[in-house]
Amino acid sequence: MAGNQEHKLCMVPGPIEFHEDVLTALSTPSQSHVSPDFIPVFGECFGLLRKLLFTDKGQPFIVAGSGTLGWDMVASNLVEQGEDALVLNSGYFGDSFTTCLETYGAKVTQVHAQIGDRPTIESIHEALSQNTFKIVTITHVDTSTGVLSDIKAISELVHKASPNTLVVVDGVCSVGCEEIRMDEWGLDVVMTASQKAIGVPPGLSILVASERAINIFKGRKSPITSYYASWHNWLPIMNAYEAKRPSYFATPPVQMIYGLHTSLKQITATSLEARFEQHKKVSDAIKRTFDELGLKMLPKSLDIAAHGMTAAYYPEGIQAPDLLRKMLAHNIVAAGGLHRAIASKYFRIGHMGISVVESERKHIEQVLDALKASLHELGYKKA
Amino acid sequence: MAGNQEHKLCMVPGPIEFHEDVLTALSTPSQSHVSPDFIPVFGECFGLLRKLLFTDKGQPFIVAGSGTLGWDMVASNLVEQGEDALVLNSGYFGDSFTTCLETYGAKVTQVHAQIGDRPTIESIHEALSQNTFKIVTITHVDTSTGVLSDIKAISELVHKASPNTLVVVDGVCSVGCEEIRMDEWGLDVVMTASQKAIGVPPGLSILVASERAINIFKGRKSPITSYYASWHNWLPIMNAYEAKRPSYFATPPVQMIYGLHTSLKQITATSLEARFEQHKKVSDAIKRTFDELGLKMLPKSLDIAAHGMTAAYYPEGIQAPDLLRKMLAHNIVAAGGLHRAIASKYFRIGHMGISVVESERKHIEQVLDALKASLHELGYKKA
Repeated sequence: MAGNQEHKLCMVPGPIEFHEDVLTALSTPSQSHVSPDFIPVFGECFGLLRKLLFTDKGQPFIVAGSGTLGWDMVASNLVEQGEDALVLNSGYFGDSFTTCLETYGAKVTQVHAQIGDRPTIESIHEALSQNTFKIVTITHVDTSTGVLSDIKAISELVHKASPNTLVVVDGVCSVGCEEIRMDEWGLDVVMTASQKAIGVPPGLSILVASERAINIFKGRKSPITSYYASWHNWLPIMNAYEAKRPSYFATPPVQMIYGLHTSLKQITATSLEARFEQHKKVSDAIKRTFDELGLKMLPKSLDIAAHGMTAAYYPEGIQAPDLLRKMLAHNIVAAGGLHRAIASKYFRIGHMGISVVESERKHIEQVLDALKASLHELGYKKA
Repeated sequence: MAGNQEHKLCMVPGPIEFHEDVLTALSTPSQSHVSPDFIPVFGECFGLLRKLLFTDKGQPFIVAGSGTLGWDMVASNLVEQGEDALVLNSGYFGDSFTTCLETYGAKVTQVHAQIGDRPTIESIHEALSQNTFKIVTITHVDTSTGVLSDIKAISELVHKASPNTLVVVDGVCSVGCEEIRMDEWGLDVVMTASQKAIGVPPGLSILVASERAINIFKGRKSPITSYYASWHNWLPIMNAYEAKRPSYFATPPVQMIYGLHTSLKQITATSLEARFEQHKKVSDAIKRTFDELGLKMLPKSLDIAAHGMTAAYYPEGIQAPDLLRKMLAHNIVAAGGLHRAIASKYFRIGHMGISVVESERKHIEQVLDALKASLHELGYKKA
């Protein structure tokens, strides 16, 4: 069996720690992408993703690529040249999504928030009243800041104020650890990557589109200006595999999909509500510890903080890489900052997936113990 | 250890059989994409790819995606709107590359060949004399027909007849099993995927660009109309990892890259010349057997047949799926046809990588024995 023995715990906000069964699935011996063994495995992933996102008719896309490819899918399939997009920007990933949308010809308006904050409902309402947008994009959890957006409230607002606007959620750091009810909340696209709370190594771009989004795609007037990201190429393939028929556009990443299937089966085998609740509970406990240690977190208040990661400034007197190095010596891999404006000033830890729901692994205790010990060794005293 | 025990031999023209050490590398426990353990592993892959393609200064790109993504990289980075591209079409993959190029605004001229043939040097010369092309694309081995193109001779011709035209080789079914001397032969792009003769599960798009191609890319006048395929995003990342520095655009597929590193180390540890020679020798033997069995192969003659795969028509009286089913019962997975015009009329087997160079595995004997037994069971008698 593939194992996790004797490796440093990877407690960054993705890639997360992977279950042994997922790692074993990754090393499935070679199989043809059109073999009768593989087809039902791929085929089942679609239903499992729908279950995870509480959607009946959402259309999943599972494609070899990084999470970033999901932006290309949104920008190239759903927005036509010169159409307007509204980006709700809560950090690094809002900036990058903007660049991607503009690459495909969208005219982007951004609602910015201060670092550690998210656009207010009022500012979003104001923006929606000034133009008609084809899509609005929300970074559910900005992995650079750990800020959580209220996608339910925003979607409600968009549907009221601008009923034809598609609601697009970048769920890279939220799918699998934050509650997302696609149908009930009226979300049109939820995209993610395999290596976060879905618990599979990086290499899969995963996206679910609503019926409404698929219809908008089908009704496009202009051709799609990407080949690899075009749903014209992928939709027939996804439909074929779900119907347990082989089909070919590009060779699907067989072993990665075995890993995905294994992880999605695990995730959906128990109550999703309990899963999200557990992520909240563990996150609250971690953030309490950070508070007690006197570490200032990036999100300006607890109610807008993500539940799968925690980002905090280095305390006075502690130099940027020292804390990470010390933690590494304690066998914990944590992450530095990512937001360009303050990258050297803060660090991040991830707490998603098996590290959270399989408490017997004691990952959370280990990361907090390592943090405390590292701070102590660096001579840190709470102010 | 991850194992290959008791699985049906995957003898299609990709995915090929994977070495146990590659499968084990795939199940490497979680690591951060910027961890000091991972960076040198990724970093070493660049030099290993250069070695495989006999290039000193070629710039490799290793990106999460299917092989298809390599077409997007070529089309979006090297060709500008309205520029001319010449596609030498020897089957299915020439058609698809054409569609991809047109998606990004190229004006494509094709030199077609009959099924089982490749464009003649004369027809290519003729086409080159009628227009000035930004790029010429050659499918080194068309996986749909098993036809091998003479990229050395074509490149020589292009450099003479049209010195500013970039020579682009789709090496998806050739890199790792056919000789490719990038620098000596003046090739500007060689692209491939992980799951063929490189011997790693599907999920990596691998491309090497010459200095000249990189300079053309850098001197573009118009912006690049893809985000995920843009070398502006990837080049700094590739350079950083090769220099053993972490960098971030999208999370690299850590486990897949461990697999790639393992396989490239194996491949380059012994003489590449001997490796290519072995593929020729085994291919010749297989094709002799096909001949002896009275099976008509797709390539019109042996000198234009690929060395990593064999494609042959079903004999008279044998229905399309029956032979594949029989072979499966003998534990061999072979592939059906792929070329749209004749897909139901022929089948394909792959013979690349460990199945060829590790003869002690006896994969080739097994596939030929299964073929003979299956034909016999279906009542086939040589005409």
